[in-house]
Amino acid sequence: MSRHPPQNFDRTADEPSKGELAFLRRVEQELRIGRPAEQPPPGDAKHAPVPFGDDMAPLTDGPPPLLWTTDMLMDGVDFEGGKHAWRDIGHKAMAANLSDCAAMAVRPLAALCAVALNNQLSMDDALEILRGLRDCGLRFDCPITGGDTNSWDAPTVIAVTIAGRPEPNHSPVRRDGARPGDLIFLTGPVGGSILGRHLTFEPRVPLALQINQELAPHAMIDISDGLALDLGRILDASGRGAVLEERDLQAVIHPDAALLAARDGQTPLAHALHDGEDFELIVVLPPDAPRETRQRLGLLPIGQVTPAREFHLRRTDGQLAPLEKRGWEHFR
Amino acid sequence: MSRHPPQNFDRTADEPSKGELAFLRRVEQELRIGRPAEQPPPGDAKHAPVPFGDDMAPLTDGPPPLLWTTDMLMDGVDFEGGKHAWRDIGHKAMAANLSDCAAMAVRPLAALCAVALNNQLSMDDALEILRGLRDCGLRFDCPITGGDTNSWDAPTVIAVTIAGRPEPNHSPVRRDGARPGDLIFLTGPVGGSILGRHLTFEPRVPLALQINQELAPHAMIDISDGLALDLGRILDASGRGAVLEERDLQAVIHPDAALLAARDGQTPLAHALHDGEDFELIVVLPPDAPRETRQRLGLLPIGQVTPAREFHLRRTDGQLAPLEKRGWEHFR
Repeated sequence: MSRHPPQNFDRTADEPSKGELAFLRRVEQELRIGRPAEQPPPGDAKHAPVPFGDDMAPLTDGPPPLLWTTDMLMDGVDFEGGKHAWRDIGHKAMAANLSDCAAMAVRPLAALCAVALNNQLSMDDALEILRGLRDCGLRFDCPITGGDTNSWDAPTVIAVTIAGRPEPNHSPVRRDGARPGDLIFLTGPVGGSILGRHLTFEPRVPLALQINQELAPHAMIDISDGLALDLGRILDASGRGAVLEERDLQAVIHPDAALLAARDGQTPLAHALHDGEDFELIVVLPPDAPRETRQRLGLLPIGQVTPAREFHLRRTDGQLAPLEKRGWEHFR
Repeated sequence: MSRHPPQNFDRTADEPSKGELAFLRRVEQELRIGRPAEQPPPGDAKHAPVPFGDDMAPLTDGPPPLLWTTDMLMDGVDFEGGKHAWRDIGHKAMAANLSDCAAMAVRPLAALCAVALNNQLSMDDALEILRGLRDCGLRFDCPITGGDTNSWDAPTVIAVTIAGRPEPNHSPVRRDGARPGDLIFLTGPVGGSILGRHLTFEPRVPLALQINQELAPHAMIDISDGLALDLGRILDASGRGAVLEERDLQAVIHPDAALLAARDGQTPLAHALHDGEDFELIVVLPPDAPRETRQRLGLLPIGQVTPAREFHLRRTDGQLAPLEKRGWEHFR
């Protein structure tokens, strides 16, 4: 839902709790006002309405339901207008939203784009953003059908909204379905995306649809803020914990994480756990999910869901070390 | 589609044409790439897909079709964070999008909101924006179902997306259906909205649905950029012209237009014709639309559509004077 909460919410004297989670809880409370309470049918969480705060929000009931998501990117926060190519920036804005579709195994249908362009941009700069947005969308059958174009003296802002549907006879994969004993996988290696992949990544839409079709995952999320933080969101939403295996994690450290570690003195594992914007998927599968299918789809195991709300790393020597659910928020 | 195009697009040497229209033409060209050509069935424009650049864009085919719209508001351009109440600003952001629904006689269904909040905002400021957004939406049965929350050091940006449907057995009212001889109406007086109404206006959603049901308008648009400019958009899209009656226009000059005129030396009529953000509707009706119904719905006549692409004011003395299709773009 959010990568960049207002940072100074602790300035409000009567608001003791800080940061993103506190803010989103307040947002959720406020949005409940005036609306009928949503009571998911007991025992049928999979077919209940998608709850507030997942990767996409409900738009219409189905079947299949229509869902939508929006993501806003800002110059100086999510990209550097003076450094990155405008076409890559457009790509990233579309791909970040498509990644939210992947996170729920939703097939994108169409996009709207709203922009506030800094007045120093040329028409060609603006069209390059548009081409990046368009070309990325079209690769996933997601055309831009409209939008809103504005200009101003402040840095450029790009907001994309995408609507989509799960495949027929499939439900969107939520983040609150992880159960004790479930196995945790990644769709690819992570860490060090800041070296370039955060701009050029391909959202895992087709793979997500295939995973949903063949493996019926209990929960999924895309890694936008960091493996530990985003897995933490699955665990918090599901009321569970997890133990990650250091031995397994060694196999999902991206070479960029090692490169970055060599520069800044952190470990490659810390980068893999806490760097944002990898946009790989965290996939939580029942323990009996066929190994052959998992391997064919390239899923990389990293650990297991536990009944207790713990979050631990099992080191190669067997010792358990506590893990922090932190990521982008505190890290860059 | 746009109130604030990039202003310096003339900086690009190989781009002789300037301004918003040129930019939007380029956007439309670029967005056509990679997509099948849309050929509206001849003689059935009313049921053809909604073309690019109308107040809402197509999302799904019907019946009834789902449409959506997005509008981005920026501090210092669309509102003044230091001056206006954050709740009113939230109201405006939602109401501006709902007004796009009204413009096409579409019943809103749900909204997504993305914000980039300036870091100086307190949590309560942020929640006040949300409450303004929420309360305005709920009055029109349009709940916020999700969004994206960000913060940064630049001015606050609010982007709202709304999806909706026309009433069963009705089509969305487009802007390209005006025919020679059609009569032109407003849903209320205009001009001088900058004195406050641009923040507090009520989008004409219920009235628009009623107009579509009872009068089957040939074209509609909401006045976001000014009566002359937005009527010009109907005329350009329809390939027609219009003559407005000065005598009739006297009855649609808002008292705020007169107040503002007394301050700045312009005429009240100039303010009524060229001020933006009134968010009343321009309604184009066939000449045989029942007078009783028009009057019951409070529609105020202002002129008539002509076959030629002229745009004239008929003064009270009978003389024709040319009108400019200008509005917000050049005026503030």
